Amino acid sequence: MKAAGRLDSSRKAPLRVLLLGCGNVGRGLVRVLTVERDRYPGLEGLDIQIVGITTGTRGAVARESGVDLVRALSELEGGGRFSKQNPDRVELTSLEAVQELDYDALVELTPLSIANRGEPAISHIRSALERSRHVVTANKGPFAYVYRDLMNLADSRGVRLLHESTVMDGAPVLNLARHTLKGCRIQALEGILNSTTNYVLSRMEEGLSMQEAVELAQLQGYAEADPTLDLEGWDATVKICVLANAFMGADLDPSKVDRQGIEKVTAEDLREVGARGDRLKLICRAWRHEGQVSAKVAVETVPAGHPLWAVSGTGAALRITTDLMAPIVVVQDNPGVKDTVYGVVGDLITVAERKFETENDGRLK
Amino acid sequence: MKAAGRLDSSRKAPLRVLLLGCGNVGRGLVRVLTVERDRYPGLEGLDIQIVGITTGTRGAVARESGVDLVRALSELEGGGRFSKQNPDRVELTSLEAVQELDYDALVELTPLSIANRGEPAISHIRSALERSRHVVTANKGPFAYVYRDLMNLADSRGVRLLHESTVMDGAPVLNLARHTLKGCRIQALEGILNSTTNYVLSRMEEGLSMQEAVELAQLQGYAEADPTLDLEGWDATVKICVLANAFMGADLDPSKVDRQGIEKVTAEDLREVGARGDRLKLICRAWRHEGQVSAKVAVETVPAGHPLWAVSGTGAALRITTDLMAPIVVVQDNPGVKDTVYGVVGDLITVAERKFETENDGRLK
Repeated sequence: MKAAGRLDSSRKAPLRVLLLGCGNVGRGLVRVLTVERDRYPGLEGLDIQIVGITTGTRGAVARESGVDLVRALSELEGGGRFSKQNPDRVELTSLEAVQELDYDALVELTPLSIANRGEPAISHIRSALERSRHVVTANKGPFAYVYRDLMNLADSRGVRLLHESTVMDGAPVLNLARHTLKGCRIQALEGILNSTTNYVLSRMEEGLSMQEAVELAQLQGYAEADPTLDLEGWDATVKICVLANAFMGADLDPSKVDRQGIEKVTAEDLREVGARGDRLKLICRAWRHEGQVSAKVAVETVPAGHPLWAVSGTGAALRITTDLMAPIVVVQDNPGVKDTVYGVVGDLITVAERKFETENDGRLK
Repeated sequence: MKAAGRLDSSRKAPLRVLLLGCGNVGRGLVRVLTVERDRYPGLEGLDIQIVGITTGTRGAVARESGVDLVRALSELEGGGRFSKQNPDRVELTSLEAVQELDYDALVELTPLSIANRGEPAISHIRSALERSRHVVTANKGPFAYVYRDLMNLADSRGVRLLHESTVMDGAPVLNLARHTLKGCRIQALEGILNSTTNYVLSRMEEGLSMQEAVELAQLQGYAEADPTLDLEGWDATVKICVLANAFMGADLDPSKVDRQGIEKVTAEDLREVGARGDRLKLICRAWRHEGQVSAKVAVETVPAGHPLWAVSGTGAALRITTDLMAPIVVVQDNPGVKDTVYGVVGDLITVAERKFETENDGRLK
């Protein structure tokens, strides 16, 4: 029995991929493509060759016939760099690799930078698109800052620019709106989109201080060493920009969003709201008003029974209001790194398919 | 700004549709295509011509150049039949219309029959497919009884058989699994799929008796005059069969599902569970075990904080567990007839598109 989305079995050559960034998500991707491959029957037809991996501080490898992934993985998983003995080792920056190597698709997994307004990821993506290469990325910065420019560039070159992992990891919210809400106009979005703050608020409800909750989140790998981007609402702001730009034709960037973080939430606030059965959540919103799309991120009281009330821990959720039907809510149940990896894998499958859908491919078999 | 899913603007001729059944959903569809059309900018490119409407007891109309929909609507909305003065009036049964009229797509909206194991809808659909016509339907019976036969027939004729409205109305759960979970294998499904029982349980929690709650549901148009199919769990059973057959490659029919309804739930049961903060819900499940897919429908205690706990009133929800990521939950927020209508409209757009997706159609514009 096949899984959803048929791969084009007539494709002879593998999809040649250049991978930028090999942190948790990049290594997870390499694992799914190698040592864990057999666990996933739905990936049977996926034929991917990684022709290069560049990293910020751990060196780079490249080989036209495909790098030795098992070796690359084991060198990086020890926490180290690509070794001098690795025959695939090369001296290349990420941008040089994008501009010089031969590949079909770029997988951009470098870290988000708000300070640099989405750079250097934007330059990596732009350079690949200009060379008419497909791009798959989990980096949300570019779509919060220059969504339309990049999409227009991809269109003009006839290639795909896919970024399902940028919001709610692999949970298919972007693809849902793209492929399943035909004819609908999206009127409003409402969601819990930042796991770290949701996790911290959940732990604070149980009595931890914010400091303790943040440390626990860091210990469990949910929060970055510097949690400021999460706590101050920047990550949530970037995500609502991506969604509003992608779903509602907005032209937002984080500077245009009314942003509030959770830094000032106290145990007292949570107790007071909790006594009524309600919860405090960091809620992202986007809405249409007089032809304009606006967005905000703020701590709100969510009443018991509201679809977002029950989203706790690292969960995330998005409520989509359209003109043609009742609101639908997509909830992600305590996701982890695996989910971001899946978002990238799903997008790579889309790129690997010669067409998005073939004539008879409207359903599972 | 366009909405999701681009219609093929190069298509010159309208999509010629034969409509079987013109109850709430059929009339809602006709309204969206006529008097309400201007409200929905996303439908701009949709060019549909209804060449025939047949009903169980209200007569039939047909015209090759398109029936007068506004007249048809006003005749039926008075609760009456097609009038003898209507120049489009014809003497045709549904099956005759399917076999004799000229159309591109059949829209099958006749009522579900469990007693007749999905007939006569199955015959209508089969006849249309045998004539190489596309089929869109909101009737779940055929997919609970002969899913694979019908899908194979559609495949062999190179036409589409779409049924998004059969489960959770228009909420795109079928399309979500088809188009957005590429490479994933669906391991388990868990959901609240019958609105009537969920509504009745919600009202009973507030103190109504089952009898009173059912009457209220009937008054508000949520429950049929004979609510047995809902209360005894048949409707829920049919839906989990459709989902298991469509998503998990199962070959289930309702006779193979362990089925329980809500008839025996008492106010006392609800109070007891409610005192602990939990709720009783009619839960549908499907799962894989040793290469087989099984399903059941039963009243279960859902603890507070569980993603299905907050689904109240006529809401519905489906939790999808896959091998490649954390479970995702799709929740529908108090849907109504409009949602079923949208499911049909969305499927018609898919049929109207010459291809499911064009090369550059991976995103909204």
